[in-house]
Amino acid sequence: MAVYTDVSEGELGTFLQAYPVGELLSYKGIAEGTENSNFLLHTTSGSYILTLYEKRVDKADLPFFLGLMGHLARKGISCPLPVTAHDGTVIGALAGRPAVIITFLEGLSLRRPTAAHCGEVGKALAELHLAGQDFSMSRPNALAIDGWRKLWNASHARANEVEPGLAAEVDADFVDFERNWPKDLPQGIIHADLFPDNVFFLGEKLSGLIDFYFACDDLYAYDVATCLNAWCFEKDFSFNLTKGTALLAGYQSVRSLSPDEKAALPILARGSALRFMLTRLYDWLTIPNGGLVMKRDPTEYIRRMRFHRPIQSPSEYGLI
Amino acid sequence: MAVYTDVSEGELGTFLQAYPVGELLSYKGIAEGTENSNFLLHTTSGSYILTLYEKRVDKADLPFFLGLMGHLARKGISCPLPVTAHDGTVIGALAGRPAVIITFLEGLSLRRPTAAHCGEVGKALAELHLAGQDFSMSRPNALAIDGWRKLWNASHARANEVEPGLAAEVDADFVDFERNWPKDLPQGIIHADLFPDNVFFLGEKLSGLIDFYFACDDLYAYDVATCLNAWCFEKDFSFNLTKGTALLAGYQSVRSLSPDEKAALPILARGSALRFMLTRLYDWLTIPNGGLVMKRDPTEYIRRMRFHRPIQSPSEYGLI
Repeated sequence: MAVYTDVSEGELGTFLQAYPVGELLSYKGIAEGTENSNFLLHTTSGSYILTLYEKRVDKADLPFFLGLMGHLARKGISCPLPVTAHDGTVIGALAGRPAVIITFLEGLSLRRPTAAHCGEVGKALAELHLAGQDFSMSRPNALAIDGWRKLWNASHARANEVEPGLAAEVDADFVDFERNWPKDLPQGIIHADLFPDNVFFLGEKLSGLIDFYFACDDLYAYDVATCLNAWCFEKDFSFNLTKGTALLAGYQSVRSLSPDEKAALPILARGSALRFMLTRLYDWLTIPNGGLVMKRDPTEYIRRMRFHRPIQSPSEYGLI
Repeated sequence: MAVYTDVSEGELGTFLQAYPVGELLSYKGIAEGTENSNFLLHTTSGSYILTLYEKRVDKADLPFFLGLMGHLARKGISCPLPVTAHDGTVIGALAGRPAVIITFLEGLSLRRPTAAHCGEVGKALAELHLAGQDFSMSRPNALAIDGWRKLWNASHARANEVEPGLAAEVDADFVDFERNWPKDLPQGIIHADLFPDNVFFLGEKLSGLIDFYFACDDLYAYDVATCLNAWCFEKDFSFNLTKGTALLAGYQSVRSLSPDEKAALPILARGSALRFMLTRLYDWLTIPNGGLVMKRDPTEYIRRMRFHRPIQSPSEYGLI
């Protein structure tokens, strides 16, 4: 939640001459994103976001992320469109960092989404999955099981500081996942981080999807499972079946889940909960307190893992 | 440079219903101001700034600051206009803090202003002084000599950590200021903090003055002296006579300085340099490193104090 890099009006003005965005009227560093520096620009042609990529983003992945956003936007998905410079490139350089201009999307991210919002998210997720099918690039999911294992190896020794018994509990999950994780389900481009912060609404209408910096190739149903974790739990960690039903029905109104995908939802949801627990746990244990990066509580996802473990049937998520 | 208070879309939507600003389209926390939390809002009627006042601003001063902005804006000064709620009030409450909506001004604050920009600033400062003459409220300058003395008493013991000999040097200045500070010069509403961050330009045209949270009643010429310190020194601490000439000529194109005001410029400029040195010194010595508040180097103003000390005539600033 911070602007890391300072940009002067002079260097920004020079940078913008390479793009068809009109004259700069104002720019403000915005408290958005934990990985990059972001600025909201007003120009004579509208509003844009300028992103400077800081260390945590692998530069080699940028053509994938930006190519994907452009592909999806051109297919009608409401996501930011990277602006192509006069010379045909998308990724420029500013203040010594890779820098990109994308269109600004109006909309509000919701703290308390309703079932209607969850239905919209499900629908948009399925539309994203379909729109990505003819995207030509691919990117393995760095946070699939192998990636979890690395995070877990780095956190295992201190996991019980967060909650006694956590180390043994997660060890047992790894045995299960490494044996039973589904492999032959439909896959393609997934968003992989479609949390409420990354979805904008105007009233009940979804107005935009943002932050494609975890997008990758993986199981579609895993993306659905992540949305169940992100959208359908209440603050007291209860699962809201009405929201689950709405999200899954919204998804299936655009793309039907196969019987195998449906059957896999419980293990996928449990794995997704583990994935977010592990990144939070790793940050919790390694990032100093009081710094600029906001640390999020890993126990919220331990609670979700425990919710999913005894689920017998995907109908318990509201699948009709 | 931080957003301190988190505001949810729900509470913001409710808050905005009290104001004639249309429907909320988006809001972003912006990295602007060190005292308050600021958000840039897009609504169906335009762009606004939402400010939540944090602890460092004295709530009792808000009616003065906001009344002044409203007064100046209505007199044609390009400054933010506080939006009056449907019930006639300007200061609301949001997230447990006093909160205000002001109009958003387009424009860029400059790192490297030219002499032409300095001329515009001088002109705008004089216009502000004239426009403030019939403002009905008043506020003593909390950072006049008495205020400097408090900061100095709190910093004196450790001043030599910043630069050996600083304590004795500033002690001698205080003797001089407490004896010779001018009292009978024209006074009224001054901005008191008209640094480049607080002035917007579009090209060479000044498009806005912001941040009135140091505004108060004091000597007009003291405000001019602060602008000389803020706008006319180069990064190597040399005084740029061309910029000084432009700033003073711009000012006098709107309001003439009296002979007494002119003669007082050297001591006022030296006092103003001490004032900014002292607030920086105090923060330097008391605010922990690595926190959210950016600490600015006090030595930049020690250099200015030393520049002003031997000045014999205001013509050395470019006064024609």
